[in-house]
Amino acid sequence: MQDLLARLTSGEPRALARAISVVEEGAADADALLSTVFPKTGRAMVLGVTGSPGAGKSSLVDRLIHHYRRAERRVGVVAIDPSSAYSGGAILGDRIRMQEHASDDGVFIRSMATRGHLGGLAKTTSDVVDLMDAAGYDPILIETVGVGQDEIDVVRAADIVVVLLVPGMGDDIQAIKAGILEIADLFVVNKSDRPGADRLIADLDFVLGLVHGIPGEKPQILKTVAIRDEGVVEMRDAIDTLYEGRIDRRRERRRERAKSRFHAILAERLTARVLHDALGEGEESSIIDAIADRKTDPYRAVERILASVKVTS
Amino acid sequence: MQDLLARLTSGEPRALARAISVVEEGAADADALLSTVFPKTGRAMVLGVTGSPGAGKSSLVDRLIHHYRRAERRVGVVAIDPSSAYSGGAILGDRIRMQEHASDDGVFIRSMATRGHLGGLAKTTSDVVDLMDAAGYDPILIETVGVGQDEIDVVRAADIVVVLLVPGMGDDIQAIKAGILEIADLFVVNKSDRPGADRLIADLDFVLGLVHGIPGEKPQILKTVAIRDEGVVEMRDAIDTLYEGRIDRRRERRRERAKSRFHAILAERLTARVLHDALGEGEESSIIDAIADRKTDPYRAVERILASVKVTS
Repeated sequence: MQDLLARLTSGEPRALARAISVVEEGAADADALLSTVFPKTGRAMVLGVTGSPGAGKSSLVDRLIHHYRRAERRVGVVAIDPSSAYSGGAILGDRIRMQEHASDDGVFIRSMATRGHLGGLAKTTSDVVDLMDAAGYDPILIETVGVGQDEIDVVRAADIVVVLLVPGMGDDIQAIKAGILEIADLFVVNKSDRPGADRLIADLDFVLGLVHGIPGEKPQILKTVAIRDEGVVEMRDAIDTLYEGRIDRRRERRRERAKSRFHAILAERLTARVLHDALGEGEESSIIDAIADRKTDPYRAVERILASVKVTS
Repeated sequence: MQDLLARLTSGEPRALARAISVVEEGAADADALLSTVFPKTGRAMVLGVTGSPGAGKSSLVDRLIHHYRRAERRVGVVAIDPSSAYSGGAILGDRIRMQEHASDDGVFIRSMATRGHLGGLAKTTSDVVDLMDAAGYDPILIETVGVGQDEIDVVRAADIVVVLLVPGMGDDIQAIKAGILEIADLFVVNKSDRPGADRLIADLDFVLGLVHGIPGEKPQILKTVAIRDEGVVEMRDAIDTLYEGRIDRRRERRRERAKSRFHAILAERLTARVLHDALGEGEESSIIDAIADRKTDPYRAVERILASVKVTS
């Protein structure tokens, strides 16, 4: 454990991979590991990148990684895949993308399935970001398709949120309205050589004007063509400028992240502990049966358990 | 309160609307209301309908309502809208759809935004379904775009899960793989007069064969053209047959629903209670600041609070 920690903080990719597995599997050591690592975190810029499937997210992220590498920064990527419970993760996507950066120790990519995270996807993502941060990766990119509430919560935790759009997908602005419009710091219209790009920008600009009352707060809209590497350096620079310029907002977001994390961990641990201490063998199962059969209701059942909980200060 | 309850269980739509508001606002009476109503629930068939935007979900649901009404059943609909935090709910969609059934007391439609539900969207949806159930609506349709984890959890709670597909949207099968493939009981290819319908069915059939090892468990695939009312009666009948035939599965789902509900309510109430009792004025805020500044870590902070919790049996 002590050895793993030393290797992790010295930036060894295999130690990072091992630490992530410990955390994802919820092993007994996970808490101690995260707790020890925590003071060494908070240094990396955390960048959330979201956009519909087909927006060219992977290509753009790959180009962005390339340009960060040219600036000699070590890049961590957490790719959230809306993958099947059945397949247990988009291993394929991971493998394909790893090939390009496989020989580069300065890039660490980890795919995570949306399903089956103890305490929620947002919590696991924060834990993995912390581990990458402690291992010296900076920036750390969180990549999602940005559709569900859980995913929005994940991206919300980033210092800077970039939303990717693409011309010619009618639903796009409507889909983006799903809670992400308000938290985006930067919009990027990719494949901007396609017909309809200017129209999309005009529409988006109009909608952003409605959402952001104060003109100065309206996020910038950039154009890229990722596969030809057009506009990507400008995008990287715009992100850096935003990051440097918005210290207050960054602080506010980090506080928000700290809060939701504290609550998520507390709720999870507290529930497990109280269920364990308050109920005997098979008692929880009986309660659930009684609720399913409408012999009791969940509110009453919870009240009864709460009555046995005492808090001493 | 007693009056509201009496009017609710006699099936008065205005009482139902009022009760839903009480629950959604998390008013002090909400628990008592849900607790009292609970024994009167568990009678309705709960139907989850999910599909990408553009699959013609609203048209199909409207036709389905029409045919349930012809069979003199009172229909409840919970429409989950991936709406903006800013706009606070897709009121517009609600209004448009209400027009068609506005004069019909036998149809009750409620739109819910995905954001901002205390204890989660799945919990609020279950509460609203209970209220509709107690008011005598049966079936109750839960309609979502089925993309995020939170939405999958919502649909998962239904007795029967119907997944809607449409030809000519390349991403469809891939998008559906997001955890819903395994829990679907019935697939419906809408707009099945379009080119590509047979190809889609063949693809889907192939994928379902991979997911469901046992041939007998492979869900049926139906064809509809909702706007011409083709195949909708057959769909309704297939749903009824599934519902009647799968008593074991239904029981299992209801037990699962009871369990997740019990846990969600327990986690929420327990956390609120312990935070209130364990921490003095401003203390929680200090802890969050300390975490944000990396002076402490959330795991240690939670441990300290857990140490003050005693469970007496």
